[in-house]
Amino acid sequence: MRLAELSRRSGVATATIKFYLREGLLPAGRRVSSTQAEYDEEHLRRLQLVRALIQVGGISVAAAREVLTAVDDSSVDQVSRMGTAVAALPQPLPGPAADDPGAATADRVAREVQERLGWRVVPENPAHQALVSAISALLRLGYPCDGAALLPYGELAGRLAEHELSLVEEFAAPTTQLEAAVALTVLYEPVLLSLRRLAQAEQATRRLRDGIPPR
Amino acid sequence: MRLAELSRRSGVATATIKFYLREGLLPAGRRVSSTQAEYDEEHLRRLQLVRALIQVGGISVAAAREVLTAVDDSSVDQVSRMGTAVAALPQPLPGPAADDPGAATADRVAREVQERLGWRVVPENPAHQALVSAISALLRLGYPCDGAALLPYGELAGRLAEHELSLVEEFAAPTTQLEAAVALTVLYEPVLLSLRRLAQAEQATRRLRDGIPPR
Repeated sequence: MRLAELSRRSGVATATIKFYLREGLLPAGRRVSSTQAEYDEEHLRRLQLVRALIQVGGISVAAAREVLTAVDDSSVDQVSRMGTAVAALPQPLPGPAADDPGAATADRVAREVQERLGWRVVPENPAHQALVSAISALLRLGYPCDGAALLPYGELAGRLAEHELSLVEEFAAPTTQLEAAVALTVLYEPVLLSLRRLAQAEQATRRLRDGIPPR
Repeated sequence: MRLAELSRRSGVATATIKFYLREGLLPAGRRVSSTQAEYDEEHLRRLQLVRALIQVGGISVAAAREVLTAVDDSSVDQVSRMGTAVAALPQPLPGPAADDPGAATADRVAREVQERLGWRVVPENPAHQALVSAISALLRLGYPCDGAALLPYGELAGRLAEHELSLVEEFAAPTTQLEAAVALTVLYEPVLLSLRRLAQAEQATRRLRDGIPPR
């Protein structure tokens, strides 16, 4: 298809598509004349992923490029590609500051919850570092936060991950699976957070208005 | 306690505390001389909440002021105060654009999942609008997203909310409960998101490396 059709089918303006092409977020089309190029379904899928990352995920062009480079890196195995691509997504929090006095305790709690769940601890995963920061903040503010308090969150996260990896496996090609893993990670974060807010409102209303005792 | 002690106990620099006082995020201390004021445990707690909102939650001073105004508004009942305070927190996504052609379908899906869960649907809750935006993006990108696909996320969010409201109820005073509700909403978001990323990495490693079949 030509650029105009790619724009129509994706809902992305041609000027934006040209910007993504220049920035290397979208591979060049197949040249059919000095002024025209031909695009295929793969370009359409990649364009939708770029839009998800940038428009929904609020991810910078530089971070999106890093994610896509990992997705396309066929020199390493599928697990490493997925790990690198997802790790290149912006984290919920930066890792703990070098002078954070609570980081060591928070790191112990982060390890404890993962060990209790039977997960391998990979301290260099930026998500582990983000978890350490979050735990350190909770402890500093005097909120209870030990391995036991985090266990329900970890168990639920584990069930979501099983569900999500099953969705990803429904895509046939390795690269399409990686694209889906990245897209679902980004797109389901606001789903999860907004449902949690709605659930809290529902619970608060039930408990405080109707006097339903806590279970 | 004096300003210096409030700073020492909270770990917040005196210049930052003075800024929060000027911005109305922290109530003034009790004047004891023309140059000195006395602060109490309530100031310390409020200061820790402000720090959680701004430093961990990345919330603007204006948004933090709006949240705290709702927490302190004793003219309305506890449920309304909690609802207003949590709704004033930044949302995971803005609501759908007025010209979003997928918003109506997404709104139906958002209502369906909440109805299936037995939750009251409150369309004016900004979290409902954020959910509609997220669903609209998923559908636009061609990812499966109907009431059934969202149900596991809603069920898990519901269980988290039960757990969290129980934590909040352990605080005795109504204002302290509201402060805890706001703080836990903000501080547990990065916990949940980072655990989800770690769970995905664990699942991906298990499935792709060890060949464990999907359950």
